[in-house]
Amino acid sequence: MLKLIKKRSDKIGLPPGTLAHIGRTQDRKVNVSVIDYDEEHFEEKVVTSIDECFPFKDNPTVTWIYVDGIHDPNIIKSLGDHFGIHPLVLEDIMNTGQRPKLEDFDTFLYVVLKMLYTVGEHNEIRGEQVSIVLGKNFIITFQENEIDVFDLIRDRLRKSKGRIRKVGGDYLMYALVDAIVDNYFLILEKFGSQIEDMEKRVMTDTSRDTLQKIYNMKREMVFLRSSIWPLREVANQLERGESVLIQEKTRTYLRDVYDHTIQIIEAVEAYREMVSGLLDIFLSSLSNRMNEVMKTLTIFAAIFIPLTFIAGIYGMNFEFMPELKLRWGYPILLGVMLMIVFSLVIYFRKKKWF
Amino acid sequence: MLKLIKKRSDKIGLPPGTLAHIGRTQDRKVNVSVIDYDEEHFEEKVVTSIDECFPFKDNPTVTWIYVDGIHDPNIIKSLGDHFGIHPLVLEDIMNTGQRPKLEDFDTFLYVVLKMLYTVGEHNEIRGEQVSIVLGKNFIITFQENEIDVFDLIRDRLRKSKGRIRKVGGDYLMYALVDAIVDNYFLILEKFGSQIEDMEKRVMTDTSRDTLQKIYNMKREMVFLRSSIWPLREVANQLERGESVLIQEKTRTYLRDVYDHTIQIIEAVEAYREMVSGLLDIFLSSLSNRMNEVMKTLTIFAAIFIPLTFIAGIYGMNFEFMPELKLRWGYPILLGVMLMIVFSLVIYFRKKKWF
Amino acid sequence: MLKLIKKRSDKIGLPPGTLAHIGRTQDRKVNVSVIDYDEEHFEEKVVTSIDECFPFKDNPTVTWIYVDGIHDPNIIKSLGDHFGIHPLVLEDIMNTGQRPKLEDFDTFLYVVLKMLYTVGEHNEIRGEQVSIVLGKNFIITFQENEIDVFDLIRDRLRKSKGRIRKVGGDYLMYALVDAIVDNYFLILEKFGSQIEDMEKRVMTDTSRDTLQKIYNMKREMVFLRSSIWPLREVANQLERGESVLIQEKTRTYLRDVYDHTIQIIEAVEAYREMVSGLLDIFLSSLSNRMNEVMKTLTIFAAIFIPLTFIAGIYGMNFEFMPELKLRWGYPILLGVMLMIVFSLVIYFRKKKWF
Amino acid sequence: MLKLIKKRSDKIGLPPGTLAHIGRTQDRKVNVSVIDYDEEHFEEKVVTSIDECFPFKDNPTVTWIYVDGIHDPNIIKSLGDHFGIHPLVLEDIMNTGQRPKLEDFDTFLYVVLKMLYTVGEHNEIRGEQVSIVLGKNFIITFQENEIDVFDLIRDRLRKSKGRIRKVGGDYLMYALVDAIVDNYFLILEKFGSQIEDMEKRVMTDTSRDTLQKIYNMKREMVFLRSSIWPLREVANQLERGESVLIQEKTRTYLRDVYDHTIQIIEAVEAYREMVSGLLDIFLSSLSNRMNEVMKTLTIFAAIFIPLTFIAGIYGMNFEFMPELKLRWGYPILLGVMLMIVFSLVIYFRKKKWF
Amino acid sequence: MLKLIKKRSDKIGLPPGTLAHIGRTQDRKVNVSVIDYDEEHFEEKVVTSIDECFPFKDNPTVTWIYVDGIHDPNIIKSLGDHFGIHPLVLEDIMNTGQRPKLEDFDTFLYVVLKMLYTVGEHNEIRGEQVSIVLGKNFIITFQENEIDVFDLIRDRLRKSKGRIRKVGGDYLMYALVDAIVDNYFLILEKFGSQIEDMEKRVMTDTSRDTLQKIYNMKREMVFLRSSIWPLREVANQLERGESVLIQEKTRTYLRDVYDHTIQIIEAVEAYREMVSGLLDIFLSSLSNRMNEVMKTLTIFAAIFIPLTFIAGIYGMNFEFMPELKLRWGYPILLGVMLMIVFSLVIYFRKKKWF
Repeated sequence: MLKLIKKRSDKIGLPPGTLAHIGRTQDRKVNVSVIDYDEEHFEEKVVTSIDECFPFKDNPTVTWIYVDGIHDPNIIKSLGDHFGIHPLVLEDIMNTGQRPKLEDFDTFLYVVLKMLYTVGEHNEIRGEQVSIVLGKNFIITFQENEIDVFDLIRDRLRKSKGRIRKVGGDYLMYALVDAIVDNYFLILEKFGSQIEDMEKRVMTDTSRDTLQKIYNMKREMVFLRSSIWPLREVANQLERGESVLIQEKTRTYLRDVYDHTIQIIEAVEAYREMVSGLLDIFLSSLSNRMNEVMKTLTIFAAIFIPLTFIAGIYGMNFEFMPELKLRWGYPILLGVMLMIVFSLVIYFRKKKWF
Repeated sequence: MLKLIKKRSDKIGLPPGTLAHIGRTQDRKVNVSVIDYDEEHFEEKVVTSIDECFPFKDNPTVTWIYVDGIHDPNIIKSLGDHFGIHPLVLEDIMNTGQRPKLEDFDTFLYVVLKMLYTVGEHNEIRGEQVSIVLGKNFIITFQENEIDVFDLIRDRLRKSKGRIRKVGGDYLMYALVDAIVDNYFLILEKFGSQIEDMEKRVMTDTSRDTLQKIYNMKREMVFLRSSIWPLREVANQLERGESVLIQEKTRTYLRDVYDHTIQIIEAVEAYREMVSGLLDIFLSSLSNRMNEVMKTLTIFAAIFIPLTFIAGIYGMNFEFMPELKLRWGYPILLGVMLMIVFSLVIYFRKKKWF
Repeated sequence: MLKLIKKRSDKIGLPPGTLAHIGRTQDRKVNVSVIDYDEEHFEEKVVTSIDECFPFKDNPTVTWIYVDGIHDPNIIKSLGDHFGIHPLVLEDIMNTGQRPKLEDFDTFLYVVLKMLYTVGEHNEIRGEQVSIVLGKNFIITFQENEIDVFDLIRDRLRKSKGRIRKVGGDYLMYALVDAIVDNYFLILEKFGSQIEDMEKRVMTDTSRDTLQKIYNMKREMVFLRSSIWPLREVANQLERGESVLIQEKTRTYLRDVYDHTIQIIEAVEAYREMVSGLLDIFLSSLSNRMNEVMKTLTIFAAIFIPLTFIAGIYGMNFEFMPELKLRWGYPILLGVMLMIVFSLVIYFRKKKWF
Repeated sequence: MLKLIKKRSDKIGLPPGTLAHIGRTQDRKVNVSVIDYDEEHFEEKVVTSIDECFPFKDNPTVTWIYVDGIHDPNIIKSLGDHFGIHPLVLEDIMNTGQRPKLEDFDTFLYVVLKMLYTVGEHNEIRGEQVSIVLGKNFIITFQENEIDVFDLIRDRLRKSKGRIRKVGGDYLMYALVDAIVDNYFLILEKFGSQIEDMEKRVMTDTSRDTLQKIYNMKREMVFLRSSIWPLREVANQLERGESVLIQEKTRTYLRDVYDHTIQIIEAVEAYREMVSGLLDIFLSSLSNRMNEVMKTLTIFAAIFIPLTFIAGIYGMNFEFMPELKLRWGYPILLGVMLMIVFSLVIYFRKKKWF
Repeated sequence: MLKLIKKRSDKIGLPPGTLAHIGRTQDRKVNVSVIDYDEEHFEEKVVTSIDECFPFKDNPTVTWIYVDGIHDPNIIKSLGDHFGIHPLVLEDIMNTGQRPKLEDFDTFLYVVLKMLYTVGEHNEIRGEQVSIVLGKNFIITFQENEIDVFDLIRDRLRKSKGRIRKVGGDYLMYALVDAIVDNYFLILEKFGSQIEDMEKRVMTDTSRDTLQKIYNMKREMVFLRSSIWPLREVANQLERGESVLIQEKTRTYLRDVYDHTIQIIEAVEAYREMVSGLLDIFLSSLSNRMNEVMKTLTIFAAIFIPLTFIAGIYGMNFEFMPELKLRWGYPILLGVMLMIVFSLVIYFRKKKWF
């Protein structure tokens, strides 16, 4: 289930800057790889010891250090110390309970984002935290799980497609952020078709299961919103920020990302309204359903109760009941009963009860 | 059905600036035509090859290139290259999932708008994306479908009516935007009369169909709002923007457009409240309906159940029941029953149950 | 019924500045009258031809041209041409679908307001559009219908009461706007007492008619709000605006008008909450009503169904039923039944069902 | 009952600055008293003719003129004329329909506030308008009714307690405003305990009276909010205002008042949410109640209807019904019926219906 | 129960700056202790007389005076006088009804916060007021109860861990504020798991107790919000404030606190939505429940009422009813009844009623 607050009870009272992993416990190995490139040159290697990354810091080419796994404080710490990252940032990188934000430390920019993905057949939404540190000639990315959102970008770098090899690290950061934001559209597409399915279902199916599903959708919207609103803020700060690390030409591209975040927010807000509309319809359908049940009951009762009464009359044991002696009394009574049934049926038809 | 998020799954991971059409698949031919005019002179021609447009770029008269169909990347690309349009703009032109926006690239202005129209007898609202690029002596418009909103403006140009021929491309852009915005009033007129119809219907008709219609109206309001709020922003930016491409005199006209967008927004917000009011009334009507059903049942039951009981009493087989022997026992009992019926009828009348 | 969007379908596509009347069709004559005054001097005349107004433009005294009827484009146009009013303003004057606004054209101020009044015994709210053009020595007012809101001001001018004759046209405009705004208090007084009536009624009367009335009140609030929020904006612009046409001393008075608009807005917002509270109470009353109906049914059923069952028992035809032979069987049974009735009655009383 | 809009119909059309009392009609005498003090000196007297106040205007000590009763235009007018108060302010003083506001006229500050108090055993909230005019050496307060909120301050002045005698008129104004604001806490205390009472009651008591009370609480919140939001604005303006009449040292105290208004607003907003929560609970309780009624009915019906049917079977007059001849038929049948009752009781118990 | 407004009736009318304790009455002793430290040196002592604190004021090391208990005006007053704290601040320290706020008095900063903790098995949320006064070389903290939130920080000081001993009093204040804010995460964790429990329960348990619990959760959210929104404001002012008492380096840490408060606010807002979603589900579950009850009733009634009627027919005493004479009449009738039961069961199954 989606959690808004990560368990951090154990960490309370530690001094700030203490590196403690907050998030799902993991015991897999941390994978680190390095890509170093400029327009001419391209180098990629998987790193076995973290020290192998350090020489890249001072060469003029763009270096992308890719850290998959944030649960090992030693790796985070030695990277941080060598590349001059503030201890509070290192703490934030390891704490997966961050909200998306951008922090400008003059010598580097720190961006935290949530990469969303869906699992299972119900397309349950999950979030993975991605941290990006942009320095002068380097960019370091940290991610929680193995789900690899940056594969396509690595490919583009390898194949030397487009602008990406010709320009600096800021453009690479744009590409990374763009990849994450683009992914939100996929999530929204899926969510949108879930809503459409539910719109058809809610009119007829008033079971507890439908209610549960609508509530889950509402809950997921709450989660989505809390990831997306700060995302927009980050995109805006990137576009308008004062940082010297981002070149003027890249800002046009970042404006595009900002535009996308606004589109996403508007879609989420619209979906929110639709989901709450679904709940209204569910309640109306329930009432409609109850109406139908009551009508059935009333029709049965209104037709048979008077008839039973009449039958009761002629079941009385009075000595002097002349009708009982009549030769045609019984068939006549049956006829009268049939007439009563017919007139009641016509009456209810007129009221459009069935 | 209206979609807030267009399917863009296939495009994820492409580098920015890649031209890929996002929207309904189309296989019709792209039609391009050119109108070139100043106060004295007027020329109009349908273009078979896109190169025929290029010479118009540098002449001092106003040139309007009208592109009907945005699914052919080649046409978009060669136009863009020749007229100096930024690759990200070309990408946006082909992606029909844009929200209305204005972007100022110094050498040209880029405006995206949604042209709304209704289809079918239920007046379902559809949206078509219109992109306008305003350069120094030229204006290029791109639209998705054949629905021609600019016919009247072409007519005015041809017939040399009014200011339109005397002033520059910025006034033409105003005229185009104004035509699109004016069209919103038509949509709102139709929507307003749908609401009025529903107001009459909802008091008496509590069927599932009514509920479905109210929900659809709510959904359409969500869609309308998401087109209209950014529209206002665009109009505001046009009026107050710093762009040198727009002359001071044209701004007065653009203020008028801005006023219209505010009127439209207020109408939409008011309609929203009304639609949600309709849902409240629907629910109240449902409850009222149920009340009626229950009253019918209660009246039937309250009248006949006691009578049946009395008949049951005299249907018992006790040996010593003196009433059964009475000569007038049966008629007296019938009389008593009638009195019970009458007093119950009076009781329920007093309670205003029928 | 109140319309938020006036029918303007016929006007779509006309070039801007085209004078076309949008509003209820009228065929009455347009009445124009002129008042010309300064501290010493007062002149008033009804004008038969519009040209008679023109000489007043250049004399130094304050001239108030009062146009009753806006459906004649010729009159509007010749006035506009002579007094130098922008074509877009003339278009707006004739289009009764304007929202309240103020536009500053340096040489003149243009103010549109909605004068509200009530018709019929249900105090249905109607709105009439009033346009005021304030120039250097003149003021022109345009109104849609004959309902005369400015009578008292003409009287004050005639009788030379108070400041009004000593100061310029800006103070006259203040007086006109103040008269319109003051009128809103009357409307709100009436609306307030409607709400009080409804508060008493809604607790007991759950008929469809009550629901309809509450919905109508909600609808009227929607309409009122859409007239009043921009009104406040207008008052604010008047008070703080930069226009040289308004003297510093008049601004103190305009601040008073602004205060009134805020009071009106707060009242409208409070009424809105009350009306939506009324709907909640209506729904609760409906539920309460239903509860009552169900209780009646349940009491009847719970008392008589067991009794009928007992009577049914002794109506069975078993050969060996010793009770049937008892001399006091029948009266004893009746006694038992009475006891059952009493204990059920006590039970339901304890549950506070009646 | 609380009124948001005071009846002002009679005043419509009067020129601005006309002094007309708007509020509850009063015929009591207006009481005026004067307190004149500085650190050393203290003088207090009840004034019989308003002229007696005038000499105090020019002496350097602080003078507090206290006017109890605002329905006599003559007194207001002569005070206003002598102390140089703008006619529009005098008009506002007499019109009890003001919203709290502060107006800075350079030579004096005008503050209007609402003093709240409760009447009757239901603690109905009432509001009294208090106007304060702060000039260079004087302060004039106007209040509507005899309810005396400033008694304690007069006492402090008399007894020369604390700072109040050492500092200027601005500190006296702070003390007056503080007294009024402090009083709001009392009202909120009472309101808070009303909410607590209702929280207990609403779970069990679903009578119409409870609904009426909740609605009244909602209505009172609407009234409270409309007094309190502008109050905060006033306190803010006092603290941050530019007026030379308020010394820097006094601003620290005014910040304290501002803090209090924010606390009050937050409490009111929280209470609003609670009251609307109460309504939700009331509705839920109603539904719960209905559920109970329906269960009772269903249990009775489900148990006795099948039994009655069985009794009916053996009440039939077929000639060949072998069971009727059995010696133990009757007791066996009674046993079967008992078993049916038991199994149904167990069934409903399992469903947790009772 | 949580109170938004503390009883302050007794204090009304006292002059500002009067020290009066507002809060739960306490009769325990006030404990005061002092910690004095710099990088080298550490001293801690429990103070028996308040005068023992005074010498620390002027030494250059950082002094932390820790006051546990705010109900003794003498202690507060003598501390305040010696350390130069404004009387209004002393008043605020003793009044536990403060909202979180920061006040900058140039020579010292005054911060009020709410420390939250839970009591009892239902994790009821309580709040304790903590006041922090930061001066040049000293910091004084005041707290209401014995619940000790600062223990861990004292420990860190004693053990000379981390930065805390090397830097000034501003960093100590950061540590104190951070400890309080971190504690909010604990509260939210608990609240989050309460919501999850309720999500499971609300679908099946529609008892009054569930409703009461949901309401209590809503009420607690109201309380939480009113503590948390101003907390964010405080954190923001600390980070961006102009005070010279806070060094530039410390601000980076304070930004971290600010980030945390935003995370907390977003979680609270999300929880609020979830709690209101729970209420919707509760209502839907109630309706669902009612539906079930009604279906049970309807099925019983619809099956047995017709059968009873048929039995009633053959219980009539007409002389000429040929069926009664038939040898197989009774078994045939039983068969017919069985068929009716079966067809009704099939009918209701088709309608998915059971």
